[in-house]
Amino acid sequence: MTPTFAHRMDRVVPNAIGELLALGADPSIISFGGGYPDPTLFPAEALAQVFDDVIRAPGGQAMQYAPSDGLPLLREQVAELMTADGTPCTAADVLILQGSQQGLDFSARMMVDPGDVIVTEDPTFLGGRIAFDPSEPVYAPIPMDQDGMRMDVLQQVLETTPRVKMIYTIPEFQNPTGVTLSLARRRRLIELANAHNVIVLEDTPYRQIRFSGETLPTLKSLDTQGRVIHLGSFSKVLVPGLRVGWAVASPALLGKMALLKLANDTQTSTLNMAATSLYLDRHDLAAHVAILRAAYARKKAVMLDAMRRHFPQDVTVTDPEGGLFTWATFREGFDATAFMRDVALPEARVAYVPGASFHPVTPRANTARFNYSAQPEARIEEGIAALGAALKRHA
Amino acid sequence: MTPTFAHRMDRVVPNAIGELLALGADPSIISFGGGYPDPTLFPAEALAQVFDDVIRAPGGQAMQYAPSDGLPLLREQVAELMTADGTPCTAADVLILQGSQQGLDFSARMMVDPGDVIVTEDPTFLGGRIAFDPSEPVYAPIPMDQDGMRMDVLQQVLETTPRVKMIYTIPEFQNPTGVTLSLARRRRLIELANAHNVIVLEDTPYRQIRFSGETLPTLKSLDTQGRVIHLGSFSKVLVPGLRVGWAVASPALLGKMALLKLANDTQTSTLNMAATSLYLDRHDLAAHVAILRAAYARKKAVMLDAMRRHFPQDVTVTDPEGGLFTWATFREGFDATAFMRDVALPEARVAYVPGASFHPVTPRANTARFNYSAQPEARIEEGIAALGAALKRHA
Repeated sequence: MTPTFAHRMDRVVPNAIGELLALGADPSIISFGGGYPDPTLFPAEALAQVFDDVIRAPGGQAMQYAPSDGLPLLREQVAELMTADGTPCTAADVLILQGSQQGLDFSARMMVDPGDVIVTEDPTFLGGRIAFDPSEPVYAPIPMDQDGMRMDVLQQVLETTPRVKMIYTIPEFQNPTGVTLSLARRRRLIELANAHNVIVLEDTPYRQIRFSGETLPTLKSLDTQGRVIHLGSFSKVLVPGLRVGWAVASPALLGKMALLKLANDTQTSTLNMAATSLYLDRHDLAAHVAILRAAYARKKAVMLDAMRRHFPQDVTVTDPEGGLFTWATFREGFDATAFMRDVALPEARVAYVPGASFHPVTPRANTARFNYSAQPEARIEEGIAALGAALKRHA
Repeated sequence: MTPTFAHRMDRVVPNAIGELLALGADPSIISFGGGYPDPTLFPAEALAQVFDDVIRAPGGQAMQYAPSDGLPLLREQVAELMTADGTPCTAADVLILQGSQQGLDFSARMMVDPGDVIVTEDPTFLGGRIAFDPSEPVYAPIPMDQDGMRMDVLQQVLETTPRVKMIYTIPEFQNPTGVTLSLARRRRLIELANAHNVIVLEDTPYRQIRFSGETLPTLKSLDTQGRVIHLGSFSKVLVPGLRVGWAVASPALLGKMALLKLANDTQTSTLNMAATSLYLDRHDLAAHVAILRAAYARKKAVMLDAMRRHFPQDVTVTDPEGGLFTWATFREGFDATAFMRDVALPEARVAYVPGASFHPVTPRANTARFNYSAQPEARIEEGIAALGAALKRHA
């Protein structure tokens, strides 16, 4: 049979970039493609111990079903982390999710009817679009500069576009550009959202991984009208394999999101919630994050230094204050997708993510995202040198 | 602000039964409400060991991101389990899910436009309706008898109802009735689905927990046209806290479902997939399931025996060949919801699930679901005796 899918599935199609990146899984390729944290920094010993303890605890509770909102103690611990980070909240304001990705899907399902508009940064996180697409939105991408999403353009778009339901932003060390939204723009974004009665979806997977500059207030902490849905995650500060993230939002929004959570997968893994909770109880997460920050700051410096030495002079890259990515802009006319397929992978044995897939509406061909967290420093130097040589050969 | 939700959220509302069941969480209440497996039968030692080994394995792969389709080895092992169970398939036919619940949500999102029809058993699994509701289906519930969904009524409904997209069934030890779909009806269901070009969603969380009678072929194994989506789960045969389930379906369906998986939560927990895989590699799952089967068969016998001795003569209950539930029908005019709120909880200190919430369209008041897997045998006897006495007092 040939299935007749629901209309929304017209938007659920494979991404061409996926196939290209699959080629990068070859271990002989130096991949700057994925957004993987460095596995040598995973707190394996601590995690092994907390898993052992929660599994062997009398009563077997960590193996049983749990409330769909999440383990009460973990919700409390997340509220404490958020409060310490300047966003006061309580356990009742926290919903545990299967990674923050699930919050992207749920937010769109909650707010977006087919044809409603989601404002995004341009470029924006590909996984966001993948999560939003089944809700059949129209995208209104807003260009960025070194201070993040441009508020003059946002204002114009909000004033002239009907049916804007949600503004999606990664305020810190944005994926893919590495750029951080300035404090002035955070305040302005909230003003504009209030004026136009729009939900703000704040995605903060990299927020804790800051190398330099001052920590800025979350959009949620600037929100006086309960219109910001804040998403957080343990994927980058502990390990991605746990799939534990969270949402903080007003009761009206969080209650509906909790119903979607129950509908979608009943609950996040009790084992993973219990182990995360015990880890937070026993260990100093901030001390672990300090190790990550120092390591990723070094790796970023190694990558940017190698790019300066090896790349052609006309390639510019962002210098992020944190996170996992830098964003390269090549000369006009350069096609980063074709170059990856024809040169970078087969000749230089290097992978990155061509920038085209990060643009929701009008792809630009001459950009690319580079991840510096996953590879050892020597491989970063080696890969960037090989890619630089290839770029110069084919200039 | 008062959020303006998407239209689909009109269907995403709290279930009254949830509040009633929350009262049953009081430890002084003997609860037959949830569908919890017996935690004393969890293989804690074996799970502690496999988690320890996958977390400490060099390279940290079990803590890292993994393919959104699931770990290749686990997909292969599930295919082997399915093949041994009479449903031949390969790893490519298997998608790992966050519990089979996620397959219910994804199936509806794939197939159902607002107003499309989902055929269900009547009564049916409440979690199914909760998963389907955001896709805004209309329900066509089909009455059941001791052989499961009635095929004469199904035929009539398919012949007279436009826009039927999917038939949802739990063929073994159905939730909530405990009834099993007979072999003749399985064949007939597939014939009817073929004739009317409808998808069949086969949900099998209890399939392995059979006490008596012969194992029947899965609907998927009778499917010659690639129209059955088969869902399976480790929640009842290992532990629910893992949240590891799977779908087996034709490439056209599985491919689309895999895209929804990527959109929704990126992937199921790598740790839990790796631990499940190592458990399957090291341990004899069938031997563990044999222990569960024997224990739950005893518990069912204890509950049914206690019901025969303590309940009024006019209460009938099903005698399931497996699974976790029996279904009670009280005298006409009895209101199981009111009785639970007014008598069972406050006087008898016993909880069950009133049957009304399992009927998608026309609730019947005089039914209830009883779970026999969660409570120790002595508590089953004690709870049923207390409930029986209360029923007789208020007859």
